[in-house]
Amino acid sequence: MSSPSPAPVPFPSTLLTDLRSAVGESHVLQGGDLGAYERDWRKRWHGRALAVVRPGSTAEVAAVLRACARHGTAVVPQGGNTGLVGGSVPDDSGTQILLNLGRLNRVRAIDAANLTMTVEAGCVLQAAQAAAEAAGLLLPLSLAAEGSCTLGGNLSTNAGGTQVLRYGNARELCLGLEVVTPQGEIWSGLSGLRKDNTGYDLRQLYIGSEGTLGIITAATLKLQPRPRAQLTAWAAVPDPEAAVALLGLAHQYLGAGLSGFELMGRFALGLVDKHYPQLRVPLWHDHPYCVLLENSDNEGEAHARARFEALLELALEQGCVSDAVVAENLGQAKNLWHIRESISLAQAEEGLNIKHDISLPVSAISPFCAETDALLQCEVPGVRLVNFGHLGDGNLHYNVQVPEHGDPKAFLREHEARINTLVFDAVTRHGGSISAEHGIGSLKAETLTHYKSPVALALMRRVKAALDPQNLMNPGRVLADPAPTQETP
Amino acid sequence: MSSPSPAPVPFPSTLLTDLRSAVGESHVLQGGDLGAYERDWRKRWHGRALAVVRPGSTAEVAAVLRACARHGTAVVPQGGNTGLVGGSVPDDSGTQILLNLGRLNRVRAIDAANLTMTVEAGCVLQAAQAAAEAAGLLLPLSLAAEGSCTLGGNLSTNAGGTQVLRYGNARELCLGLEVVTPQGEIWSGLSGLRKDNTGYDLRQLYIGSEGTLGIITAATLKLQPRPRAQLTAWAAVPDPEAAVALLGLAHQYLGAGLSGFELMGRFALGLVDKHYPQLRVPLWHDHPYCVLLENSDNEGEAHARARFEALLELALEQGCVSDAVVAENLGQAKNLWHIRESISLAQAEEGLNIKHDISLPVSAISPFCAETDALLQCEVPGVRLVNFGHLGDGNLHYNVQVPEHGDPKAFLREHEARINTLVFDAVTRHGGSISAEHGIGSLKAETLTHYKSPVALALMRRVKAALDPQNLMNPGRVLADPAPTQETP
Repeated sequence: MSSPSPAPVPFPSTLLTDLRSAVGESHVLQGGDLGAYERDWRKRWHGRALAVVRPGSTAEVAAVLRACARHGTAVVPQGGNTGLVGGSVPDDSGTQILLNLGRLNRVRAIDAANLTMTVEAGCVLQAAQAAAEAAGLLLPLSLAAEGSCTLGGNLSTNAGGTQVLRYGNARELCLGLEVVTPQGEIWSGLSGLRKDNTGYDLRQLYIGSEGTLGIITAATLKLQPRPRAQLTAWAAVPDPEAAVALLGLAHQYLGAGLSGFELMGRFALGLVDKHYPQLRVPLWHDHPYCVLLENSDNEGEAHARARFEALLELALEQGCVSDAVVAENLGQAKNLWHIRESISLAQAEEGLNIKHDISLPVSAISPFCAETDALLQCEVPGVRLVNFGHLGDGNLHYNVQVPEHGDPKAFLREHEARINTLVFDAVTRHGGSISAEHGIGSLKAETLTHYKSPVALALMRRVKAALDPQNLMNPGRVLADPAPTQETP
Repeated sequence: MSSPSPAPVPFPSTLLTDLRSAVGESHVLQGGDLGAYERDWRKRWHGRALAVVRPGSTAEVAAVLRACARHGTAVVPQGGNTGLVGGSVPDDSGTQILLNLGRLNRVRAIDAANLTMTVEAGCVLQAAQAAAEAAGLLLPLSLAAEGSCTLGGNLSTNAGGTQVLRYGNARELCLGLEVVTPQGEIWSGLSGLRKDNTGYDLRQLYIGSEGTLGIITAATLKLQPRPRAQLTAWAAVPDPEAAVALLGLAHQYLGAGLSGFELMGRFALGLVDKHYPQLRVPLWHDHPYCVLLENSDNEGEAHARARFEALLELALEQGCVSDAVVAENLGQAKNLWHIRESISLAQAEEGLNIKHDISLPVSAISPFCAETDALLQCEVPGVRLVNFGHLGDGNLHYNVQVPEHGDPKAFLREHEARINTLVFDAVTRHGGSISAEHGIGSLKAETLTHYKSPVALALMRRVKAALDPQNLMNPGRVLADPAPTQETP
């Protein structure tokens, strides 16, 4: 790879001709303001593209990739550009093609009897959810960015979200893929099959590989019957250990009905209370942690409520819950989820912070928190922890905020690297992962080389070299290489 | 690859020395009767090994593979040797090492709070189930061979079985793997994490690759709380279309409680009735198909029974069920499952037949059966269909038996190839798979080259070449190459 260079790069005219003939002149964007493509939504990453190319079909994607392969031009795929790890904007070199999949946005088919739908990569998650709902079914993938993220991005990053506990990550929801290889061949692997043991499961290679092995252009996804009732409860717990005990009880009592289990620390909820007092956060003030539980029931509300109450009574009796409320209606339930989803925004209102998207075996969460909370206080006395996340999946957003009245920018400058090392080392000691659901992108590609086993990294590099020998697909993402510039805070 | 040769192959003495020093002299078997290793349990495949090597630890497996890599010696891994596609016996050349994993049979750990267990590859499935049960938990993988098959084999073949509908295939049950690469390196990818987006999901490459990319030595598996009640019902349905309609209702009514949905054709049940009359097959005589349903309930038996009765009443009302019974007790339930599991045995009693392990989108099952049943009658008038399977997963064992009073051997000789083509072509037209849960092995490696897309095959070959450049790992399996001899019936 050439190193990033600020000098303007002359556009190879035959590549331009090839791209225009592949997708039509009006879908090859150059010059003008390309900021919406070249910068991520949080404005933390930016780059400069040789051109933005917007194909309208799988065949056009294939033609673009064949042209790029001929010219040795790197390609950065982009869906909704809502990723958090700098995976979908070009580097600074001005030599990379930004391949925006937004025009491939059709729902191709819904097969209600088979409980599947086939959608194109550029389809916005919320649009796919709505199409499933119109067919009386549920697409059980839900995350904060669902109004703008796309299915292609969701699959490329193996997105998680709030319903993983019951339905799995994006990986588990995908039965088949259509992919364009770096050489511009089309693999038509769309499939509505729940069982298919005919060789290596290629679909698994592309899911979660962040566009570094090929371009996902469409997918067949599993759907579910819509539950008849969805009830939400809010429970105060004394500590993470009690939350884990409550999770165990909830698994036993609700079985697969348990579709959400979110942990939220007092400081995190206090930030929501401070910045959005109208949300009226319940129970937070007098308890170290709160848990949000969701019960999706295929019988009805009365049954769901009875099960929830039996569970919470037992939990109160056993001492793993200190106090609890069950939402009386949909409005209350939505408000409870809204509180949970407002933590990130409240945190941003409070100022810059150091974010960690980690996972642990559920059994390691309590010892991890005890140990790491203490280590951080030693490192930076008074540091504040915004600890919350999908406890049911072992996934914490374990974020670190400057001590009160401190300067967030100075804090990040001075402490970010050491705090990351401290947290990731602790995660590793407890058998966890340094990226639970956000992926690697540019942000953690270098870090990954320190925390992933050398054998795994070597295997990954072999796979990459086998499928993308020219290293043209999103180079430097996942596996370290030159990357876009991260803005200094 | 050299072609199979009947001449004795001199044992390279340095390889022998290396293997003995890797695992100890007593675990390198040569000469004597190695039939239990060199022949599969159904006695349909046999081969001849240079030696049978039985390592006792992951480090020993690594030492064996390093020795084989140095000497360019091929390795055929073997678990319980219960596969159905000739994937776990050596070829006829006498040049391959048979690596039996039976001594790696420990349950390494159970983490009840995390709902996971870590087991070694040679652990028999039933022993792992028992260990989970002793911890009050459920390992939800269950198949006919569970008393002798091993977890390593289950994962290498992505085993299915009777609970896929609720819990997924072996792939979905596996959170992490320990693997020895063909170069003899150990990838320690054991993990109890439900979310981990740190690069390519290598575990998915090894699951279902039938030992052609490396040797799985241990795995971390998801466990489930044990359901409080498991109820079984038996429903007569007029045709496959009605069975699919019943499946849709069952999804809505039972949600994730629906843990089994098996279809059985009249002729299949008639064979059970004929050969095992003591099983007293219900409802089969007057109905074209029967369905076995299982409802796993986390509340209790009364609740499970009420839900089942509500479902079956509605189904009777809507006409998709003609008659139904719900097992009154565990004994009756076991007997119903026993009938289902006796179909293969009854079929064997009746004589040789042509087996197909296919899958289809659930919505395609009825048209596929109508079309293919008719095509087979044109091809061989009077041919008898043993049609049964895991309808909830779209998986049929669509087996073809000689017409009454015909000679099975002559039937197979004359018709097997054409009938396979007829069935596989129909499967392909309906978007299905020629191997749903049994895998490819030697049996279908050649066939796969006709039915898998050339792009997919090329991608698979690239992956194989990248991870096993010497082609030493179970060569010829999955991707066609010289293979063991199939016995002629």
